[in-house]
Amino acid sequence: MQASPFQQSFQSSECHARCGQLKTLHGEIETPVFMPVGTQATVKGMTPEALKEVGAQIILGNTYHLYLRPGHELIREFGGLHQFMHWDRPILTDSGGFQIFSLQELAKISEKGVAFRSHLDGSPLFLSPEDAVHVQEALGSDIMMALDTCIPYPASRDETIRATALTNRWAKRCRVAQPQTGQLLFGIIQGGMYSDLRLEAIQELQDIGFDGYALGGLSVGEPKEEMLAILAECGHRMPRDHARYLMGVGTPEDLVEGVFHGIDMFDCVMPTRNARNGMLFTSQGRVVIKNACFQKDASPLDPCCTCYTCRHYSRAYLRHLFQSREILAYQLNSIHNLHYYCTLMADMREAIQQDRFLAFRSEFYRQRGGLQTAMQPT
Amino acid sequence: MQASPFQQSFQSSECHARCGQLKTLHGEIETPVFMPVGTQATVKGMTPEALKEVGAQIILGNTYHLYLRPGHELIREFGGLHQFMHWDRPILTDSGGFQIFSLQELAKISEKGVAFRSHLDGSPLFLSPEDAVHVQEALGSDIMMALDTCIPYPASRDETIRATALTNRWAKRCRVAQPQTGQLLFGIIQGGMYSDLRLEAIQELQDIGFDGYALGGLSVGEPKEEMLAILAECGHRMPRDHARYLMGVGTPEDLVEGVFHGIDMFDCVMPTRNARNGMLFTSQGRVVIKNACFQKDASPLDPCCTCYTCRHYSRAYLRHLFQSREILAYQLNSIHNLHYYCTLMADMREAIQQDRFLAFRSEFYRQRGGLQTAMQPT
Repeated sequence: MQASPFQQSFQSSECHARCGQLKTLHGEIETPVFMPVGTQATVKGMTPEALKEVGAQIILGNTYHLYLRPGHELIREFGGLHQFMHWDRPILTDSGGFQIFSLQELAKISEKGVAFRSHLDGSPLFLSPEDAVHVQEALGSDIMMALDTCIPYPASRDETIRATALTNRWAKRCRVAQPQTGQLLFGIIQGGMYSDLRLEAIQELQDIGFDGYALGGLSVGEPKEEMLAILAECGHRMPRDHARYLMGVGTPEDLVEGVFHGIDMFDCVMPTRNARNGMLFTSQGRVVIKNACFQKDASPLDPCCTCYTCRHYSRAYLRHLFQSREILAYQLNSIHNLHYYCTLMADMREAIQQDRFLAFRSEFYRQRGGLQTAMQPT
Repeated sequence: MQASPFQQSFQSSECHARCGQLKTLHGEIETPVFMPVGTQATVKGMTPEALKEVGAQIILGNTYHLYLRPGHELIREFGGLHQFMHWDRPILTDSGGFQIFSLQELAKISEKGVAFRSHLDGSPLFLSPEDAVHVQEALGSDIMMALDTCIPYPASRDETIRATALTNRWAKRCRVAQPQTGQLLFGIIQGGMYSDLRLEAIQELQDIGFDGYALGGLSVGEPKEEMLAILAECGHRMPRDHARYLMGVGTPEDLVEGVFHGIDMFDCVMPTRNARNGMLFTSQGRVVIKNACFQKDASPLDPCCTCYTCRHYSRAYLRHLFQSREILAYQLNSIHNLHYYCTLMADMREAIQQDRFLAFRSEFYRQRGGLQTAMQPT
């Protein structure tokens, strides 16, 4: 374990929000940061150039999907995921665990690892903690995630204790298997909805020592209040001298709350998936672009937005493309939503640096609360 | 009728191939030219910027589709199709006739026009020659096409005579309805597979007087030899002082033959549709990207190609995207195929200007004949 690759540069005097820089093999990331999800070696509908234009500093790749297709050994032969997909900025890969558990009802966990079947052809496969690290090493990601178990919601305290303990033993094995490549390895904090178990897990993982720490197993079906309670208890209690990553979360509001509680990194499929479903994030709330009210609307999607889509196209055109199921609809909508997410993070970084994060947060809710109703379908 | 908007600048000394410029409201087009098809106010999978990058000088819009959705009056309110879809180069619109006949088994032709039903909601609609012009006027296209009838293949001589005569009467009515907006109007030469009827139609349309002339009703299911025979008889006999447009054709080989016979303009869905189906045009022949032989192929799709796709991605990556049904597959494949088509036209223009078109044509067939076999699926 080297010195921490994370350096905090600003700390809010009002709350736990903070700015920092995370050093990786492919450059430094300004935090807090949102990571667009590129499941199958592509962020759906986005060229790498378009990703850069919306301000993406780092993307996430899904180990499970890449392991199955095209295969991590093929990607290694191609010089890693960066080279394969023409993306020269940092990449974080998950461990594959979450996808195995969420796509596979029949996944079987043992001390050794997890047995599962390919969702593509049903072939039996096995992933140990060491395998998860080796696959991510082959992918060449800048940040690797330790293999964890996924605790369902709801789960009893006993069940949660057992699963968290196994996650921690797996974390240790991942740490031992970490290669000397300069690739960072993050540990994942489980503990379900029991904040005392979460705090214990933080301590155990910190004792092992990772390059960064993630809150896993949130946004898995629990009421929003439960997630926010865990976040409030644990966010700022994760190691201060390392990057803190809230996995798989979330809505724009979740990002603001996460930063408020001291989180540095986020990923979520929401901006891209919602874009493909015609649900767009704007400074005035959510827009469902297929709604008839936009049929003759010559205004841009979001008058406050400077993205490619908002600079050149009307709501009427976006609605037409979406209704016609044109590929360009998915492209333009994805550009807008990712720009919205990346700009939200940049705005939060600026607010923190100017030590006015609470004012930013209030204004964020005020704007959205005031106008959101008018934009909803009737 | 003003002076011809077309100016011939080079004439091959060896054959009927020629270069020229066509003046439109949105600028001058260098011919011979290929027009990517943008059916529903978008060329599928392409931003306007990407279209410019592949060298598209002009695109085609489909009046039938735009008439139904979002509607020509809405597009008029938005300042025309250019403004609506963020494309500032020339646009040619077809008359809607071909789509009505090809999508509608129950379309009913009368002297007055054609009665049909919307393929979207089944509502009964009617399009007269005058309507076709008015709709295209509302769309604001640079080049409008006269409404013609579509003659099925095969068709008897009597049937062809009747349909061609009706097309010519409709052409006259379109010409009378042509607005004083500077929008050009092209007449369409029918005559089926009877070259004497085609030559008569050329004379009749020339007597009416159009801004350009098109060969319609080809590539409708006839053997390739029949199309080439009509092309050889009629291509160079279309008015020399006007642009000559071969509608809905075709393969790269068809474009070379068309230019050889004196054609100036082409359109076809083939490059974009084939791109979406994973069939790619290269200097060495056609590539079916899903083939297993490309699984570990680190070379670009076409080593001789300078397009965005070939500059940055391997065949293995393109295969992975296609197999994974990723949106980016359709984007990258469409960029490549349209670049191939536009570059082929640019290469032909250069060869004509250097008066070596026959050598270009021989080399084109030699290259493709020699290597095509190796690229086919096994």
